[in-house]
Amino acid sequence: MGVTSSPCASCKLLRRRCAKDCIFAPYFPPHDPHKFAIVHKVFGASNINKMLQELQIQQRADAVNSLVYEANARIRDPVYGCVGAISYLQNQISQLEMQLAVAQAEILCIQMQNNQDSPSPNYDNNNYNLPEIQIDNDNNNLQQYLRLLEIINNSN
Amino acid sequence: MGVTSSPCASCKLLRRRCAKDCIFAPYFPPHDPHKFAIVHKVFGASNINKMLQELQIQQRADAVNSLVYEANARIRDPVYGCVGAISYLQNQISQLEMQLAVAQAEILCIQMQNNQDSPSPNYDNNNYNLPEIQIDNDNNNLQQYLRLLEIINNSN
Repeated sequence: MGVTSSPCASCKLLRRRCAKDCIFAPYFPPHDPHKFAIVHKVFGASNINKMLQELQIQQRADAVNSLVYEANARIRDPVYGCVGAISYLQNQISQLEMQLAVAQAEILCIQMQNNQDSPSPNYDNNNYNLPEIQIDNDNNNLQQYLRLLEIINNSN
Repeated sequence: MGVTSSPCASCKLLRRRCAKDCIFAPYFPPHDPHKFAIVHKVFGASNINKMLQELQIQQRADAVNSLVYEANARIRDPVYGCVGAISYLQNQISQLEMQLAVAQAEILCIQMQNNQDSPSPNYDNNNYNLPEIQIDNDNNNLQQYLRLLEIINNSN
């Protein structure tokens, strides 16, 4: 990390003198010209300058990293950029939520079936005519399962 | 949807004549000046022009919408912009994947316990000394459950 007199990657690309207090220099070192080139292509040096000026110094490194990420996404996918990734992740979340709801409904369903199959010894079975309710055990479980799925889907 | 002679929102903001073939006009109508102002602030008119020029006409409306979305995200969160949303969604996915793994392990665990409690009538119980294996049923299930969780976590 020696001190270098080379202009930063931004000033090199913009062909200007790199001042001692250059706002780009801490984030765009001369050995990584591509990093600035890509944000310059998408956002423009003037806009990046303005955006960084509006932030506190300790926030600027994170802002530069997120701008580089966004610019790379836009170069890879010129139509959707980062928004394509957001849409993909939102779809993944919907699928996982659905799978989780199904798994949780399945757990409830198995637990209810187990409770019906093995009534707790603490209850007086004469007061709970469970065997009579189970006219068609498979169909009954399926209906419980579908009802649970419906409840879970409606609650989302 | 009558034909209007008003310049589009972009040309109005940039104080220039809106040509018949203005690249911005189809996407930045004069009645919505904020839409162009926000993408101009983040990306700059010149960059948006270049990005649209590089796309096919039928892709441009989607590109403009995604640029407006990204610009709005950057205005709301000047440090992380869209990348903040991506990070949040990725965390949500990790949590859902973990919850799903736990739920699926729980289903397997209950099913294994049920199989042990009620051996299938198709099997000859003399060949499968299941009752002998169940020295400590609760502890055994717990260990199976933890092993399954370990397998699922290692596979991710």
